[in-house]
Amino acid sequence: MKDSLNHLIEEIRVFSEERDWQQFHSPKNLSMALVVEASEILEIFQWLTFEQSQRIEGTQLAKAKEEIGDVMIYLVRLADRLSVSPLEAAFEKLEKNRKKYPIEKSRGNAKKYTEF
Amino acid sequence: MKDSLNHLIEEIRVFSEERDWQQFHSPKNLSMALVVEASEILEIFQWLTFEQSQRIEGTQLAKAKEEIGDVMIYLVRLADRLSVSPLEAAFEKLEKNRKKYPIEKSRGNAKKYTEF
Amino acid sequence: MKDSLNHLIEEIRVFSEERDWQQFHSPKNLSMALVVEASEILEIFQWLTFEQSQRIEGTQLAKAKEEIGDVMIYLVRLADRLSVSPLEAAFEKLEKNRKKYPIEKSRGNAKKYTEF
Amino acid sequence: MKDSLNHLIEEIRVFSEERDWQQFHSPKNLSMALVVEASEILEIFQWLTFEQSQRIEGTQLAKAKEEIGDVMIYLVRLADRLSVSPLEAAFEKLEKNRKKYPIEKSRGNAKKYTEF
Repeated sequence: MKDSLNHLIEEIRVFSEERDWQQFHSPKNLSMALVVEASEILEIFQWLTFEQSQRIEGTQLAKAKEEIGDVMIYLVRLADRLSVSPLEAAFEKLEKNRKKYPIEKSRGNAKKYTEF
Repeated sequence: MKDSLNHLIEEIRVFSEERDWQQFHSPKNLSMALVVEASEILEIFQWLTFEQSQRIEGTQLAKAKEEIGDVMIYLVRLADRLSVSPLEAAFEKLEKNRKKYPIEKSRGNAKKYTEF
Repeated sequence: MKDSLNHLIEEIRVFSEERDWQQFHSPKNLSMALVVEASEILEIFQWLTFEQSQRIEGTQLAKAKEEIGDVMIYLVRLADRLSVSPLEAAFEKLEKNRKKYPIEKSRGNAKKYTEF
Repeated sequence: MKDSLNHLIEEIRVFSEERDWQQFHSPKNLSMALVVEASEILEIFQWLTFEQSQRIEGTQLAKAKEEIGDVMIYLVRLADRLSVSPLEAAFEKLEKNRKKYPIEKSRGNAKKYTEF
């Protein structure tokens, strides 16, 4: 239970209510914050090669972890405000993708691979 | 176990390996996909007012759920490639924010509120 | 001529060549930098209301101007690497939008207004 | 004069007024639209290699040109709403970068190269 996704959702709710920040947390504003944080991950990798991006470490890795935390927090908060389960949403999308990209036709194929 | 975050990580691994898509999944490329999907959530809300964004329904809500699923998938996949736990990252960041934004000083205060 | 868009394109070319930075300026990398900078504008407005965003001033306005400069630089540089004229691209898109959104049907209509 | 940047700004003003769309064009909303369009450029390049991104053609290049047009339109419109000249902003930023990244110290150096 503790340290589960449900636990995270609950802790973010408490955090926001204690500070009276629900008033800023419209889905519109949260979608902006989500992109702002996701772009901070993008910033880490913008000038790195494919290979360099696979072996970041030290300060860069710590920074990436922190930004991943931020994206997770806003994603979970946004989903909560829309009464959507992010986990259920992900499993459903994965199921959809299994049908959209059949194994045989998609293997190693970047062309078809426009979306996950 | 089933339908947990760990279960999702594992299913995405299998999905990617079956299609031999690990070759595209560098942290650099995944950070791009993450932002692309997060921006599709942004697109839903761009012309809505604060209030309208709080009561989307029907097609718009279904679309939002699907994009939340996409962001979750790429976030979890990116974290996996960097050997980072997205849940641990989120709890650590939340702890950091508790100290950065003390309740008394932050209550209802949008000024201080530049980050989560 | 001086201080025209063509002049800007030329100055950015010289700036990049002097520092031997063409090697980092693939369209892929430049598209990442473009989004990173555009998101820094987003960050300024994320917690502001519609109305507040219309009357930013002082430090916030100076910051917005600087980020607009960054987006302009990367947009122009990206277009240059693809041998595209950003001005021609904009005029063509505007013409397309005039047909897509006829005045009578589009007046004050947020519903139809999903794209520019 | 015709087909200049000033001409584009003026045409976008007329386009928006004819449709009574100024009511949606707050800097906040325009910053969202800017990122949405910039991310559509990102989407084109997300799974391409550095090299592939340098030689896109046909449909992909046409799509890139169209999205560059969109970003240009929203950037110019946002700047107009803030009474900022995008060209002046870019020249000022370029001047700042010349001092921040002296030629000798920056040549071919990706490390220092965190921003433009």
